[in-house]
Amino acid sequence: MINEQQEALSKAVESINSDMGALWITIAAILVFFMQAGFTLVEVGFTRSKNSGNIIMKNIMDLCVGSLMFWAVGYGIMYGSDTVLGGFFRLSPAEQGYFFFSADDWYNLFFQTVFCATAATIVSGAIAGRTKFSTYLIYSAILTTIIYPISGSWYWPFDDDAWLNVAGFVDFAGSSVVHAVGGGAALVAAIMVGPRIGKYTDGKVNVIPGHNMILGALGVFILWLGWFGFNGGSQLAWGGSDTVATGSVIINTNLAAAIGAVAALFFTWIKYGKPDISMTLNGALAGLVGITAGCGAVNAWGALAIGLVCGIAVVLSIEGIDKKLKIDDPVGAISVHGVCGFIGTVLVGVFAIDGGLINGGGASLLLVQTYGSLAYILWAVITTFIVLFILKKTIGLRVSKQEELEGLDVHEHDIEVYPEFTTTEK
Amino acid sequence: MINEQQEALSKAVESINSDMGALWITIAAILVFFMQAGFTLVEVGFTRSKNSGNIIMKNIMDLCVGSLMFWAVGYGIMYGSDTVLGGFFRLSPAEQGYFFFSADDWYNLFFQTVFCATAATIVSGAIAGRTKFSTYLIYSAILTTIIYPISGSWYWPFDDDAWLNVAGFVDFAGSSVVHAVGGGAALVAAIMVGPRIGKYTDGKVNVIPGHNMILGALGVFILWLGWFGFNGGSQLAWGGSDTVATGSVIINTNLAAAIGAVAALFFTWIKYGKPDISMTLNGALAGLVGITAGCGAVNAWGALAIGLVCGIAVVLSIEGIDKKLKIDDPVGAISVHGVCGFIGTVLVGVFAIDGGLINGGGASLLLVQTYGSLAYILWAVITTFIVLFILKKTIGLRVSKQEELEGLDVHEHDIEVYPEFTTTEK
Amino acid sequence: MINEQQEALSKAVESINSDMGALWITIAAILVFFMQAGFTLVEVGFTRSKNSGNIIMKNIMDLCVGSLMFWAVGYGIMYGSDTVLGGFFRLSPAEQGYFFFSADDWYNLFFQTVFCATAATIVSGAIAGRTKFSTYLIYSAILTTIIYPISGSWYWPFDDDAWLNVAGFVDFAGSSVVHAVGGGAALVAAIMVGPRIGKYTDGKVNVIPGHNMILGALGVFILWLGWFGFNGGSQLAWGGSDTVATGSVIINTNLAAAIGAVAALFFTWIKYGKPDISMTLNGALAGLVGITAGCGAVNAWGALAIGLVCGIAVVLSIEGIDKKLKIDDPVGAISVHGVCGFIGTVLVGVFAIDGGLINGGGASLLLVQTYGSLAYILWAVITTFIVLFILKKTIGLRVSKQEELEGLDVHEHDIEVYPEFTTTEK
Repeated sequence: MINEQQEALSKAVESINSDMGALWITIAAILVFFMQAGFTLVEVGFTRSKNSGNIIMKNIMDLCVGSLMFWAVGYGIMYGSDTVLGGFFRLSPAEQGYFFFSADDWYNLFFQTVFCATAATIVSGAIAGRTKFSTYLIYSAILTTIIYPISGSWYWPFDDDAWLNVAGFVDFAGSSVVHAVGGGAALVAAIMVGPRIGKYTDGKVNVIPGHNMILGALGVFILWLGWFGFNGGSQLAWGGSDTVATGSVIINTNLAAAIGAVAALFFTWIKYGKPDISMTLNGALAGLVGITAGCGAVNAWGALAIGLVCGIAVVLSIEGIDKKLKIDDPVGAISVHGVCGFIGTVLVGVFAIDGGLINGGGASLLLVQTYGSLAYILWAVITTFIVLFILKKTIGLRVSKQEELEGLDVHEHDIEVYPEFTTTEK
Repeated sequence: MINEQQEALSKAVESINSDMGALWITIAAILVFFMQAGFTLVEVGFTRSKNSGNIIMKNIMDLCVGSLMFWAVGYGIMYGSDTVLGGFFRLSPAEQGYFFFSADDWYNLFFQTVFCATAATIVSGAIAGRTKFSTYLIYSAILTTIIYPISGSWYWPFDDDAWLNVAGFVDFAGSSVVHAVGGGAALVAAIMVGPRIGKYTDGKVNVIPGHNMILGALGVFILWLGWFGFNGGSQLAWGGSDTVATGSVIINTNLAAAIGAVAALFFTWIKYGKPDISMTLNGALAGLVGITAGCGAVNAWGALAIGLVCGIAVVLSIEGIDKKLKIDDPVGAISVHGVCGFIGTVLVGVFAIDGGLINGGGASLLLVQTYGSLAYILWAVITTFIVLFILKKTIGLRVSKQEELEGLDVHEHDIEVYPEFTTTEK
Repeated sequence: MINEQQEALSKAVESINSDMGALWITIAAILVFFMQAGFTLVEVGFTRSKNSGNIIMKNIMDLCVGSLMFWAVGYGIMYGSDTVLGGFFRLSPAEQGYFFFSADDWYNLFFQTVFCATAATIVSGAIAGRTKFSTYLIYSAILTTIIYPISGSWYWPFDDDAWLNVAGFVDFAGSSVVHAVGGGAALVAAIMVGPRIGKYTDGKVNVIPGHNMILGALGVFILWLGWFGFNGGSQLAWGGSDTVATGSVIINTNLAAAIGAVAALFFTWIKYGKPDISMTLNGALAGLVGITAGCGAVNAWGALAIGLVCGIAVVLSIEGIDKKLKIDDPVGAISVHGVCGFIGTVLVGVFAIDGGLINGGGASLLLVQTYGSLAYILWAVITTFIVLFILKKTIGLRVSKQEELEGLDVHEHDIEVYPEFTTTEK
């Protein structure tokens, strides 16, 4: 009888550990959910006020459509036990309850849902101010239903059917799976939609300043906050060694963001003579995106190195894309999520405690990291191109010139976000 | 000795489960607390700027007065072990420590306190822009001290003295207990205070647009975030089957909000030709209010159905109340909380897995849900009428015409919220 | 064998309790992190728009520099096992891993890091609108690297080498260790930097109104939210009696904030004839700062008494400092954090259940509380004076008159936060 009781206690203890993990993942998911508000504020703050209502709608719809489609289809494609086309994507037998999710681990669905919504939202910023709302809605639905879940299936089930997992790829919380995918899609979308009117005139590159830097900064604080859930929750457990590991992940995340912002601040201070606010904010985000792949694989020094590189790279990339490539990305989404997502993933191959170049691991991890991240970007580029190409030929990508000049809010939604205030072009 | 140790371990495991529950409830309460900021931003954003400071004061005071009165009196009336007038309300013997709370389960007091503050705040929005601050303060104190705790006592102690619990009523987190009570009170208050000057002129219904849709949207994001605590925390436990149940509650909450917003978006798109932003935001809130009763009783399909109905109903209700009934409710509080609170409660009788009409449960649950919700609304309507009637006859409900036109901020609080900006009527 | 299994189970249970504590501390730290956004919004909202970008930069840098320096140096100085100069500060042997932190309890580092950032940010508000950014950056780095960690080391390791711990000092979450230190530093900094141009002219005291009371209010909500982590997390454990204690801490925190706001509201209503919004908001903050020392040592009545005193004291203090002492503190940081931090610490000697004056404890605790708090303020005053004196003689404290008049944003950062809106001096 003592043995039986002991058995029961043993099981109870095990169950508690798993329940603690579920609690942490749930809280982490709630934090990641809040990132939608952060993305909205950053995008609104960094762009003209005449499109703010439209931006709000796009971001809310990313969350809404993403929540519905990922519950219905996405989770099954990403985590189902049947692999299709040699592991290209997955399907899920009915008894798993992954399509129109009805399994028991709701907290996993919740955590993955808010990640999916994040991937969609990244694209929104790059094409702000000139894209048709209906077009965006369709694209967002396809991204959350198919594009993102497939990219997720390549790695995050962490099983023998996930080819990048088998290859030894390391992307703890999604520098590539989420951010580089979003950034790659943003790149293609920004090119295909084209620049805002007045951005590039007679060979000149004009600055179209954001209309509310305070809301932008609040957005960055909220994103940074949410990232503790994004990265910390990706440990997918709590207790014992997981407690230590998650703590390290959180500190790595915080250090990379901190040094990313500091790096951008001093780099712009030296470069322009003044510490630039929007670049400093983007520097923090760059550090966060960059450390997302390696936060569970590097130590604090590695996190600092990655954050530092990303904080400088984001400044150069935003400038290069804007001035050299003349791609109009109002919030710097391509640079923050695409470029730093790629860099952060690759640098795991350099700084990983286990297998990193500087820790005597040779070049093999570095190689996997590079082609894994490129595979993700390529996937996002190709699928986004196809979807947007079809949309372009059918309902069109852009609003009319008049709509764009007078603002998407008035034309697409019949509203002014600040009806009491007189705004002037600047 | 082994037996004793085993006993001790058994108790320790039990205690851990209860501690995990307390941790989750505490975190949920913190999320619900944050909803006050959400309510404030929605109300501020959806109304004129000249009353924003007054709105801030009302919302902060709901929280402050509610926190004080619920600690002192409310919790004892709601959860005390002595029933009064056949269970009409409760009193608590001194040894319980429920009046001027001094019991051990502080996390329960905290969770219930922030719920109470929520109920009070709902009313605030419906009477924004013309109500005397002192009057509001007194009403808010009475609501948090007496009106809400009594309505809570009818159901939430979940014991044999709670008549709606005995009747088999299902209101998991308060579609009726909190939201329909708040909405019913808002209805009476909006009627008794009367419309804002300029709202209805010569038979015409004029739109008085909100002054900052970005803050309104941020408020909706914060409310949505807080709702994971509002509904998820109402499981009142964590661990084992409670972990699964809470996860399902959270997903139901998220799906209902998502489809509510999507429904409002497409419904207004079809109806007006353009997807309406404030209606879409209200659609999300409508879904949230609607699913609050049934989030623990329905599956995902039921949640989607409830959210869908509420997302459309809120549009029709806001229009009907505004244009047909000519009741001026600046933020749509009556529709969002009252109408959708009622609908959501009733629909539990249709979609509940256990006892719902479509699941072969017959009409009995549907009946209980209907009269239970109506009892709550009636209670709010009657008590609010009595309190406001007395206040009207004594200190008055409304500010003077001049005060209203020039703004409550200047007259009631001697402040302008945006002193640097020139605002224009629109 | 049964014994061995039992042993293992016993350890597992113990480990779970410690893991639950770590989970709560992590979540609490995330809430405290968010307070940086709250501080930013309060400071931005309560000051002119032309310096908002600069304020954002200062607050972000407090967090970034604080995170880096506290990881590298601060934690070791504060918690190291080697005492230096008779316990004046600490050093940490390499095997502890406290310098360039590499120990296992990352959640402790995280929790202490966000506390450190808070201390730095308090100063920012008092010198807003006229301080050189480079000067601020250096000061902030010194505060987070040396000044705050040393003050922390006097008490918070809770060991025999912490002289204030030995003396029986009680400061649960830092009314003195964090807030009075920040407030004392703010006092010296505000005096040394001098008032903003136009604040005191020809013997007149001019009001320079904040530019956005809505953002200020949102900031207060966020700070209040974060304070549940600040105080609740300072229990540094969860489970059993710690669950009860933390619950009581949270309720005490909430009650003190509530009554602080109510007290300030009625006090200004009586004094000025109108309930003042910014004072009510500061009243809530005053209650929060005041209860921070005693939230684990007093009961709800004590919390109410402390919150009440602080809510009134903050109004008198802000007025006195502004009008009598003519020290220009744009956000009232000296009063909120310094004065109420001191009062709150001292009142523990009056209201503590264990050792408080009114509970028959005599004057000994009151005495310790008083000199302990004064020691902290003195430490902050002296060190801040030395640092700023050196900075004044070298790179200077203030921007030029032109820069100040036209705004720090344009001159220090080449940006306008609201480029689309025309702002007017008021």
